[in-house]
Amino acid sequence: MPKASHRSETVSLSPIRKLIPYADAAKAAGRHVYHLNIGQPDIKTHPTAVAKFRSIDWEILEYSPSNGIASYREKLTGYYARYGIDLAVENIMVTTGGSEAILFFMLSCLDPGDEVIVPEPFYANYNGYADITGVRVVAITGAIENGFSLPSAEAFAEKITPRTKAIMITSPNNPTGVCYSDEEMETLTDIVVEHDLLLCADEVYREFAYDTPARSVLQIPRLHQHAVVMDSVSKRYSATGARVGALVCRNAEILAGVARYANLRLSPPGLGQMLSECLLEDDAGYLEATKEEYRERRDLVYRRLRAMPGVKTYLPGGAFYCFTRFPIADSEHFCQWLLEEFERDGATVMLAPGPGFYATPGLGHDECRIAYVLNQQELEKAMDCLEAALLEYPGRTLDTPA
Amino acid sequence: MPKASHRSETVSLSPIRKLIPYADAAKAAGRHVYHLNIGQPDIKTHPTAVAKFRSIDWEILEYSPSNGIASYREKLTGYYARYGIDLAVENIMVTTGGSEAILFFMLSCLDPGDEVIVPEPFYANYNGYADITGVRVVAITGAIENGFSLPSAEAFAEKITPRTKAIMITSPNNPTGVCYSDEEMETLTDIVVEHDLLLCADEVYREFAYDTPARSVLQIPRLHQHAVVMDSVSKRYSATGARVGALVCRNAEILAGVARYANLRLSPPGLGQMLSECLLEDDAGYLEATKEEYRERRDLVYRRLRAMPGVKTYLPGGAFYCFTRFPIADSEHFCQWLLEEFERDGATVMLAPGPGFYATPGLGHDECRIAYVLNQQELEKAMDCLEAALLEYPGRTLDTPA
Repeated sequence: MPKASHRSETVSLSPIRKLIPYADAAKAAGRHVYHLNIGQPDIKTHPTAVAKFRSIDWEILEYSPSNGIASYREKLTGYYARYGIDLAVENIMVTTGGSEAILFFMLSCLDPGDEVIVPEPFYANYNGYADITGVRVVAITGAIENGFSLPSAEAFAEKITPRTKAIMITSPNNPTGVCYSDEEMETLTDIVVEHDLLLCADEVYREFAYDTPARSVLQIPRLHQHAVVMDSVSKRYSATGARVGALVCRNAEILAGVARYANLRLSPPGLGQMLSECLLEDDAGYLEATKEEYRERRDLVYRRLRAMPGVKTYLPGGAFYCFTRFPIADSEHFCQWLLEEFERDGATVMLAPGPGFYATPGLGHDECRIAYVLNQQELEKAMDCLEAALLEYPGRTLDTPA
Repeated sequence: MPKASHRSETVSLSPIRKLIPYADAAKAAGRHVYHLNIGQPDIKTHPTAVAKFRSIDWEILEYSPSNGIASYREKLTGYYARYGIDLAVENIMVTTGGSEAILFFMLSCLDPGDEVIVPEPFYANYNGYADITGVRVVAITGAIENGFSLPSAEAFAEKITPRTKAIMITSPNNPTGVCYSDEEMETLTDIVVEHDLLLCADEVYREFAYDTPARSVLQIPRLHQHAVVMDSVSKRYSATGARVGALVCRNAEILAGVARYANLRLSPPGLGQMLSECLLEDDAGYLEATKEEYRERRDLVYRRLRAMPGVKTYLPGGAFYCFTRFPIADSEHFCQWLLEEFERDGATVMLAPGPGFYATPGLGHDECRIAYVLNQQELEKAMDCLEAALLEYPGRTLDTPA
């Protein structure tokens, strides 16, 4: 009988989704599951934009140009201009979600065996795309003690080899919620320019920076030829199913490489692009209200976690995640136990275990990612569950208060 | 300044799209271009289905499950049942267009350096996906003299090595329009079973078989564990922009590999899947009318090509392509000349040059692919252009009749 490829058996699996069968079983058994495990927001896609999308007149759903619908790309230049980022339409390649932007970045910027330095914990699926493209991910470990701020310039310098082609960051960050400061971006810029590297920034959470504005690598003049941005409408407009993202870059040689891969897959999704174009119009009120809602949720989650004995956390500056340390020794077991064994008022909670967000083996076993993608009433109940579970969990490493 | 990767400079370029700048220039200069170069049908997407799609009530455009929307997959089992193909929902992975099904097939079935045998000429983008995945495409050359029928069993046997993992076919074929007969499928089945290979069939043109029904590899009992089908709604429903396809397979190990890659990219396009589900309903009349229209176009193109001096062609059994030999020595030059230099009644015609459809260097220089994706009135005019151009082309290899 023909067998699958070896690589398909070893490709890095997302820690976010592999607990799904246990969640399905919990639901089949009648328990409610509070999903804090995945970045699927509960916020409505902007209803005005959706109504406009429905009213668009089309008769043939054709391939869009492989680099995206021209009018949508034009509007995107206006979106970036809000941040003082001056782009030509040619600098924007529309992609099938942010995921394809990751793939295109790795294919067009790195050859097999080349290295990309990434502060960890990081978005777990970078590993899978590195597997597909033969790219080596070199991790620099961040620390919860300083809220996962940028590792030092020295830590980066230690990791740079002749095969290093790029540094990849996510800011605001998934899974930590950290927003790098202007000083941190300056540090990165110095390193990147000195070693003639690329700085690839995943900025899909740009709109969700709660304390200070998130700085885009596209705003930094010295990075004109060094910056590659991966972007997406998924989180910004609560339209993850649109599968519309972008790769943004001013380096003509890299853009030419990206264009070849884009040609290969013919076009990004047409309907998703039409919707995305509608979403971009008159979005100021929608974005502000969404950000305010997430900010309140962040404060709620931070307040609740701080009150839980043995839990180590910090105030995340952006995105809608918090990467938290719990009094447990095996977060994968804990997350599975929550789904298989735990129940409070007919419900349980689902988190994403920490290890999958690290490239370095042995890390994250006492950490989980929390995505605050439920409304505040549900979030309170989910935190009630988590608090009770931590007291009840047999693998608890903290003595239960007498 | 940071450079692009080497691989991005060498990835196989689609011959279908690289002439686009010349077409754009022709249009900018005021000439009409008859596009026979790309498989973008002019047939309307089914209006009833589009209206139903518009009326679907949704508030949050969420990620779909990574293997596709459950109700859509369920309906797809009904679609395959029309062909007597008995499938479980689990056998169907919804993909982002047929393109992603190609990528998933190569990743989950072949390791870098493994070989897949493909009769040539073949769909040019197989090359690009083979480049990305490190797979070696081993071509067996077909012949226009027999209408590009399947190469002999002996020709396949000669190409099989210890690294051969699969044979890949397209039936009905792009770019030749050939539909393999039952006898040809039996020959392939014998080879595949004897050598324990996979038979991967791109069947996106299944509905467009004009003389005898196209036989799916999923209908052949001996291929139960050997068959992998790549499918797509793009051509069937004239919805290329939906970017919704499928990989269909009954081999559990391969399906598990495919599922890992599908998890990585989170989900296929949500709106496209919603539309595709609508397109599947009450589609019998639509599909029959579409097929009849293409059949008439095929007959028109065949009639016109046969009447052109020095042109060698055949009656293609399916899809909407014909791969034709012209009295020219450099089809890439000819196609570019059509766009840059030629004009008849203010118009010209765009074809896809032959070499890009071959893996073997030196082939296809006197051949082009014609996609009959215009209505019959326009097709006649496009054929008028082509006929006149062949008489006028300076690189013509046939003596012009006195």
